[in-house]
Amino acid sequence: MPSNHPHQRHNGPYIAVDWGTTNRRAYLLDAAHNCVDSFEDDHGVLAVPVDGFPNAVAAIRQRLGQHPVLLGGMVGSNRGWVSVPYVAAPTQLTQLAAAIHWLDAQDIGIVPGISLSGNDRADVMRGEEIQAFGAVAAGLAASSGTICLPGTHAKWVTMDDGSLSTFQTAMTGEVFALLKSHSILSSDMQGPIAANAHFAAGVSAVLAGGNLLSLFFGVRARSVLGLGSDGAAFASGVLIGSDVRAGAALAGAAPITLVGRPALCELYAVALALAGRPASVVDGGDAFRAGIRAVLEAL
Amino acid sequence: MPSNHPHQRHNGPYIAVDWGTTNRRAYLLDAAHNCVDSFEDDHGVLAVPVDGFPNAVAAIRQRLGQHPVLLGGMVGSNRGWVSVPYVAAPTQLTQLAAAIHWLDAQDIGIVPGISLSGNDRADVMRGEEIQAFGAVAAGLAASSGTICLPGTHAKWVTMDDGSLSTFQTAMTGEVFALLKSHSILSSDMQGPIAANAHFAAGVSAVLAGGNLLSLFFGVRARSVLGLGSDGAAFASGVLIGSDVRAGAALAGAAPITLVGRPALCELYAVALALAGRPASVVDGGDAFRAGIRAVLEAL
Repeated sequence: MPSNHPHQRHNGPYIAVDWGTTNRRAYLLDAAHNCVDSFEDDHGVLAVPVDGFPNAVAAIRQRLGQHPVLLGGMVGSNRGWVSVPYVAAPTQLTQLAAAIHWLDAQDIGIVPGISLSGNDRADVMRGEEIQAFGAVAAGLAASSGTICLPGTHAKWVTMDDGSLSTFQTAMTGEVFALLKSHSILSSDMQGPIAANAHFAAGVSAVLAGGNLLSLFFGVRARSVLGLGSDGAAFASGVLIGSDVRAGAALAGAAPITLVGRPALCELYAVALALAGRPASVVDGGDAFRAGIRAVLEAL
Repeated sequence: MPSNHPHQRHNGPYIAVDWGTTNRRAYLLDAAHNCVDSFEDDHGVLAVPVDGFPNAVAAIRQRLGQHPVLLGGMVGSNRGWVSVPYVAAPTQLTQLAAAIHWLDAQDIGIVPGISLSGNDRADVMRGEEIQAFGAVAAGLAASSGTICLPGTHAKWVTMDDGSLSTFQTAMTGEVFALLKSHSILSSDMQGPIAANAHFAAGVSAVLAGGNLLSLFFGVRARSVLGLGSDGAAFASGVLIGSDVRAGAALAGAAPITLVGRPALCELYAVALALAGRPASVVDGGDAFRAGIRAVLEAL
């Protein structure tokens, strides 16, 4: 860890970017960590040429100001700017901060992801760790508890006295997208998703012990037999129900906090309530900014 | 049911076709039901123009002889030749035979599929019912027991004293294909599938209570972390393990017979053995021909 990087000397404004695979969200923070400007676009990692990251950051600075920049997410993967080695779980905020990869005369930092291996399980995350630490640092999630970050690859993170002790990923969002775009259910899954009775039926069927692979085909069978159904909401309920069933088992009696986009968190909150597990909801952007602040303060 | 259809008058050779979505298998049987010629090709239902079925059958007859023809499978669906109404389960062989849809001066028959609806579950099958009844009629499966027909949409059929009482479909093969062709796991799933240690690890992880959506992502995590793995075999084990876990629970203590392609049945047999449920294996073509014979004899 460099001892003279700008974030240690610098008390002025800074830029934080949550740079994912398909989207990115950039924030301008003032010296007191208040968000004074932001934008979101679809210039995710896959939309940037392999050697295009210096220019992409220059463009962000042109828009938000010539300030130090801290980046998190897939920008630190082997398809991003620099492949930053994972920090192994369990880990604390200070270890994550110490492992930041500094670039450009130490004026740009990339926060590493976290990995898990050993026993018979392997797992990885990039970006969600910032939100998890941030939710705890801001007092929005318990320092010992479970944080669920829904999405394409949903994460269930176990925080233990402020440390990130373990986590588990579920391909919930991606499997939904596969079924919707490419499966025999596609034409039955084009409707909107809402926390309606069809969604609840899907969740309840899984919580009652139903088999995902059979519940999926039920969407097709109802359609073929003219029994109708809201296939998108039902399939979403089945998948989120499965995720919640496994995640709630991991959480045990610990409090559960949902962190992410409000609409998606709301679906998870409904599913968790059906599983008898009320959960609080934190906006993912708030958690990310709080996490970047916490990382800076841990340097 | 016509009282004068040729199969009642006719004691000569006949043609039986198992006509699925993407493939078909045609057999020429002699008067004693011995198979004397056959072929298999990719002229499944989707490869035949909507009005092309009369010509397609004429071509089959040109190849196998001008004999009466009995068709089963998706050829009787709304994308096939004629949409033949499903027979509702529970049902017996005589009911299935009585519901055959006769065409072309009653010289061509299409065997209907079977549906299930009511309670909170709906399901459909077209083609597998012939194999299930056939396996029982030929003494290859117990008249009271469970028959598993693996495939794109795997079927678990409950036979009760020779009747087909209920069944459950699982989208096992289709979800495998989705993951292999379109998911983030694609590049890790291009290897061959075999009943090796990776396959067994996938089966065992599910039987131990693992969550499919997380086990899928484990393939990605191991790859990213350079831990290697046979992703195709592991994911196949996870999916077949899930199917077997649910199917074995349905079967209870009843004997289980696998009916289908030998290589695929072998994977299921290995997974069932890991679940403590030995199963016998019957070739799907043998079961289909036995089923067509049984249907004819039940007219």
